[in-house]
Amino acid sequence: MDITIPILQLGKVLLVNVHVELDDEIASRLQNDTLQAIERCEAEGLVIDITGLEVVDSYVARILAETGQMAKLMGTETVVVGMRPEVAATLIRMGYAMIGVKTALNLEEGLALLGYTLSRS
Amino acid sequence: MDITIPILQLGKVLLVNVHVELDDEIASRLQNDTLQAIERCEAEGLVIDITGLEVVDSYVARILAETGQMAKLMGTETVVVGMRPEVAATLIRMGYAMIGVKTALNLEEGLALLGYTLSRS
Repeated sequence: MDITIPILQLGKVLLVNVHVELDDEIASRLQNDTLQAIERCEAEGLVIDITGLEVVDSYVARILAETGQMAKLMGTETVVVGMRPEVAATLIRMGYAMIGVKTALNLEEGLALLGYTLSRS
Repeated sequence: MDITIPILQLGKVLLVNVHVELDDEIASRLQNDTLQAIERCEAEGLVIDITGLEVVDSYVARILAETGQMAKLMGTETVVVGMRPEVAATLIRMGYAMIGVKTALNLEEGLALLGYTLSRS
């Protein structure tokens, strides 16, 4: 079965929910789809939610960081949210501090970091 | 491979992104996961995004309507968003008008229907 990573659009922000482990093919499709969605939606911000990932190895961490850098080149800010404690611990132990990648606790905080607030009207 | 439908939490609103065709098993898991997430997050609103669905048959339409009714019983409002024109056309032609289900054009409008606005801070 074809695995695609769903991309939600919320105004000028794209929400990418990584809910499956990323192998080479899915990761490259993720990058491609995300960049195309940024162009199509003229997105100002990108939030990558990795709550669903129980394991993030250096390959996946690099892909996430790279995607953020690519988006940045296009003019879009990226925040990675929902990193689990054990994932954060592993990354730091591996010496991979995700430098240059903005992170936030959850989707709401990520949006706030991009300058957006969800409020009850 | 195990297909799960990702559920994002945005404050007190849950965003369910249906990006794979729903068969019996996925549909029942979707209902189950969604209701459990509503309880866990004490969600006030539920947005089901079906932009990813190119076909919605009467079975899927019923599952979506049912999930909304179940959420309602628990005290949570549901909006289905992102219905494609061809899906809407098919449902109406089949005589299935999704009565009792709130719908909106996109995620942003769906959130607005639930009383939430995303604004630049």
